[in-house]
Amino acid sequence: MSWDYRAPLRDMRFVMEQVLQAPQGWQACPEWQELDADTASAILQEGARFAREVLLPLNASGDAQGCTREADGRVRTPQGFPAAYRAFVEGGWPALPCAPEWGGQGLPLLLDAAVREMLIACNQAWEMYPDLLHGAYETIKGHARPAQQDWCLGKLVSGEWLAAMALTEPQAGSDLGLLSTRAVPEASFEADGALRVTGDKIFISGGDHDLSDNIIHLVLCRLPDAPPGTRGISLALVPKLLPDGQPNTLSCTGLEHKMGIHGSATCAMRYEGAQGWLVGAPHKGLGAMFLMMNSARLHVGLQGLAHLEMAGQNALRYAFERLQMRAAIRPEGAKSAADPIALHPAMRHALLKVQALTEAQRVIAYRAAQCIDEGHHHPDATVRDRALKVAALLTPVVKAALTHNGFHGTSDALQVFGGYGFVVETGVEQSLRDARIAMIYEGTNEIQAIDLLQRKVLADGGLGLGLLLDDLDAEAQRCDAAPGLTAFAQALRQHTQQARAATAALMEATATAADPEAALRVADDYLWGLTHTLYAWAFAASARAALQEPDAAWAQAKTERMRYGVDWLLPMAQVHWHRVTAASLPLPALAQPE
Amino acid sequence: MSWDYRAPLRDMRFVMEQVLQAPQGWQACPEWQELDADTASAILQEGARFAREVLLPLNASGDAQGCTREADGRVRTPQGFPAAYRAFVEGGWPALPCAPEWGGQGLPLLLDAAVREMLIACNQAWEMYPDLLHGAYETIKGHARPAQQDWCLGKLVSGEWLAAMALTEPQAGSDLGLLSTRAVPEASFEADGALRVTGDKIFISGGDHDLSDNIIHLVLCRLPDAPPGTRGISLALVPKLLPDGQPNTLSCTGLEHKMGIHGSATCAMRYEGAQGWLVGAPHKGLGAMFLMMNSARLHVGLQGLAHLEMAGQNALRYAFERLQMRAAIRPEGAKSAADPIALHPAMRHALLKVQALTEAQRVIAYRAAQCIDEGHHHPDATVRDRALKVAALLTPVVKAALTHNGFHGTSDALQVFGGYGFVVETGVEQSLRDARIAMIYEGTNEIQAIDLLQRKVLADGGLGLGLLLDDLDAEAQRCDAAPGLTAFAQALRQHTQQARAATAALMEATATAADPEAALRVADDYLWGLTHTLYAWAFAASARAALQEPDAAWAQAKTERMRYGVDWLLPMAQVHWHRVTAASLPLPALAQPE
Repeated sequence: MSWDYRAPLRDMRFVMEQVLQAPQGWQACPEWQELDADTASAILQEGARFAREVLLPLNASGDAQGCTREADGRVRTPQGFPAAYRAFVEGGWPALPCAPEWGGQGLPLLLDAAVREMLIACNQAWEMYPDLLHGAYETIKGHARPAQQDWCLGKLVSGEWLAAMALTEPQAGSDLGLLSTRAVPEASFEADGALRVTGDKIFISGGDHDLSDNIIHLVLCRLPDAPPGTRGISLALVPKLLPDGQPNTLSCTGLEHKMGIHGSATCAMRYEGAQGWLVGAPHKGLGAMFLMMNSARLHVGLQGLAHLEMAGQNALRYAFERLQMRAAIRPEGAKSAADPIALHPAMRHALLKVQALTEAQRVIAYRAAQCIDEGHHHPDATVRDRALKVAALLTPVVKAALTHNGFHGTSDALQVFGGYGFVVETGVEQSLRDARIAMIYEGTNEIQAIDLLQRKVLADGGLGLGLLLDDLDAEAQRCDAAPGLTAFAQALRQHTQQARAATAALMEATATAADPEAALRVADDYLWGLTHTLYAWAFAASARAALQEPDAAWAQAKTERMRYGVDWLLPMAQVHWHRVTAASLPLPALAQPE
Repeated sequence: MSWDYRAPLRDMRFVMEQVLQAPQGWQACPEWQELDADTASAILQEGARFAREVLLPLNASGDAQGCTREADGRVRTPQGFPAAYRAFVEGGWPALPCAPEWGGQGLPLLLDAAVREMLIACNQAWEMYPDLLHGAYETIKGHARPAQQDWCLGKLVSGEWLAAMALTEPQAGSDLGLLSTRAVPEASFEADGALRVTGDKIFISGGDHDLSDNIIHLVLCRLPDAPPGTRGISLALVPKLLPDGQPNTLSCTGLEHKMGIHGSATCAMRYEGAQGWLVGAPHKGLGAMFLMMNSARLHVGLQGLAHLEMAGQNALRYAFERLQMRAAIRPEGAKSAADPIALHPAMRHALLKVQALTEAQRVIAYRAAQCIDEGHHHPDATVRDRALKVAALLTPVVKAALTHNGFHGTSDALQVFGGYGFVVETGVEQSLRDARIAMIYEGTNEIQAIDLLQRKVLADGGLGLGLLLDDLDAEAQRCDAAPGLTAFAQALRQHTQQARAATAALMEATATAADPEAALRVADDYLWGLTHTLYAWAFAASARAALQEPDAAWAQAKTERMRYGVDWLLPMAQVHWHRVTAASLPLPALAQPE
């Protein structure tokens, strides 16, 4: 048994082509009329090869070595990381979803998401270096002045330079309103946005490293006349190397020692009057940054998905190799002293749960990417608007639910290995350690739940949610008309009804200011209730798509896993909706520690 | 914020004295008539001091250093571990629950459990070295020949020597029936049980180390005439140093690199014709070993409890220090830019859940220890028999549920720290890594669930379970008669009824051989259903005990936490019982990996 990765290309194609019918969607967008399923598939195959052959061999060694900070403050990544990055750049991978005008390949984010899933599965720590490129590219393309765009967009798209997001400060984590990094305008500020940035940031992934010469930092800071709180935050572009090639006055002052992702340099950064340029309008930095953060949130969700796939497929292979105890129902003619543990009900539960969640979540995450694609590339403005509303709803679910299951499901998979699961050489314990961070960064999962309920559901009176649930109900109707899918259709309809009812109850409970905590008290349960509604949809849509699958054995196994999800996983939704609708349950204050 | 431990002495006393009324129970046992609550409390205070002052300072450094195997095969533990062990021996701690005839203090296991909880909270890796002493003592006292007892029991009780359990082999993990280590009788075998042991064992905690000169290995092996499977397993006592002081032919051939408990030496051991002596009857080794394993399972459950307490109390302190965002309901007169995160509903949920589980689980674990005490020391045979039946039921619940929550609840507590939770120096990530193993060793949690349902519940037709549930119903009646506890009484009664109904349904489903997987398919859910029934009891009994508490503020906070458990945590039981009673839900086979 050795830790390995067989890219789930078949399931990826199934989700893209059969469940989401993405190629038909591409046909509708002028930029993608040439793109077909086979081209997409060829890209995925190449991505799978790169991930497994180049990145996987560096995963365990990168964990063991970690990053180091040299005496001069420069950060060195684990052996092999820079060379792998050069290969990545030479392969043109950074440019995949970027616009051709900047040298990109202009491909859908959906394809980029699938490639990214494979890179992360093989080496999350490495993938984090190029992970921010696309978000930085979007932010700079959308908000920076033409001079900065001309100077750095091409280099970012090609991957010659990398990017970092500098948000957090010791006193300002979830609450960015508390940040104090200062930006002082230069004399030419009105004309060119030039400013000087001074302050300390922490938890900056890839704040320094040896993969690229230059690193473009996008730094949240305050101008002198900034109002307090989040309405006074500006965004500055602060490069490691200035346009004249000279080093800027910024430095990595320390690296964090972390539970996992040891190969990713988590830097404390100091900006000492560092030269920068304003991105977007003064005090409107958060809005400009959100472009980057939404893309980052989808990517973080993919981290959860990737770990779950990786841990699940390795645990499955082990379960078929490992012989312990005779099964209650033995294979016909079995004579050995023990059967594969894959036959034991407890292991089947563990693995079917991991598989059903992996496959359903792939549908949900890819759907989110597809909506973002539609939202930016569909010729019809109504379609674009609708797609972006759905994407906005799906983003916090993808971030929170997939990262939660990435960690907890990887723990379930670890359990299949028994004592070997706790041993470093097996591989799964690194996945578990690496997977934990995704529940925290890019907005903790608790923040995602509040974002979903307050900003995405309640703020527009449930209109956006209605669009999403209408899509789901339409799937239930399609299942009604398909043979043998009654249970899927019923489950899906029951769940959309519960989501509508719970949302209506919450809108009533929050209509007055009488109970200002009403929504906050149940935000997590609401996110999980809606997540289960989306599972119900993914199970149904996958089972229906499987009807078209020519390989009958594969289709049957897929349908059984989806049915397992309906039977064994969906009942959990009842607990979440119960707690949401019992919004008057008291939530006591915490007693001060003695 | 620094990782610290304030021993929960107040809650420990509350559970022992008010909830379980242990001192009254001690009065009924001849050996313990002198033991009173104040004496017990003084012991706990001393244990707390030792844990915090001696063990806690070695926890992070032990994790960072780990164990090393020297060129000559000897194992070296982290700096400070041997000295801490000498202090432990000098303090008389190893002897706490052992019989005075062997030099022990003859104190209840309940007290030992509470002391152990504190040692583990401060340093699980270190605590594992002396952890097996008591089980080894019980096994040798109960089953070894007088010559071996005379030779080693005194040394084990004093702690001069330590012990190791050698069960697992590469091909024999959960399935001990597959083990192949051989034992060859010596000429004097009939007279003195002498034999020679040859084989390889893995995952042997404390198989070698530098804390004590001698280590008594209890090794599972096969005699030449052994029947196959578990009915052919014998137990041998194999010392590292022979009675004449010469080294035996056993050696540590390697140390595992693990996710956590780095300070605990997990050894691969080779026995090469090592001199040993049979313990118990030939081929009856598993039965003799079970004494050791049941004690070990309670201790492993305490590992889960200890981590949850430790992570929870540190997260609580952090939540009152860390200021981020204004609360929806601010303290009167608050003018700061942000409030303690302890005020935010999501953090209150996380911490109240950890607290309610910690406190309820302390009641359940201590109750298990109390039952073992009663089962061995009560003068009335009927009481003893009943207590042992209840202890047998509680043991797998304590092992599985407490270790599951030890890991998952520590992850919840880590989340409270945000990004700092992922940083090594904070301390909580080590707890999370250390806590993971307890779900696996001493019988995986899946094995515990099968043990509970098949061997403890169904095997005697539910008689033992009936005794346990009768106790719980009696508590519901006492709550009926107490002021303000109606909700607790109702919840408890509802849960015992569900447990009875689900058990009856399962007995029916398993009455014939028609569905040989019927019980296995729902064993995990059954364990969790019954765990929630025990939570309901612990919440109710604690709330009732709090009525007697003179400190009104403390009592109110305790009652609110228990009420939080009833309102927010118990609903989860519905899902588990639903799946148990829907035992006809299909559980598909796993598809063979491609």
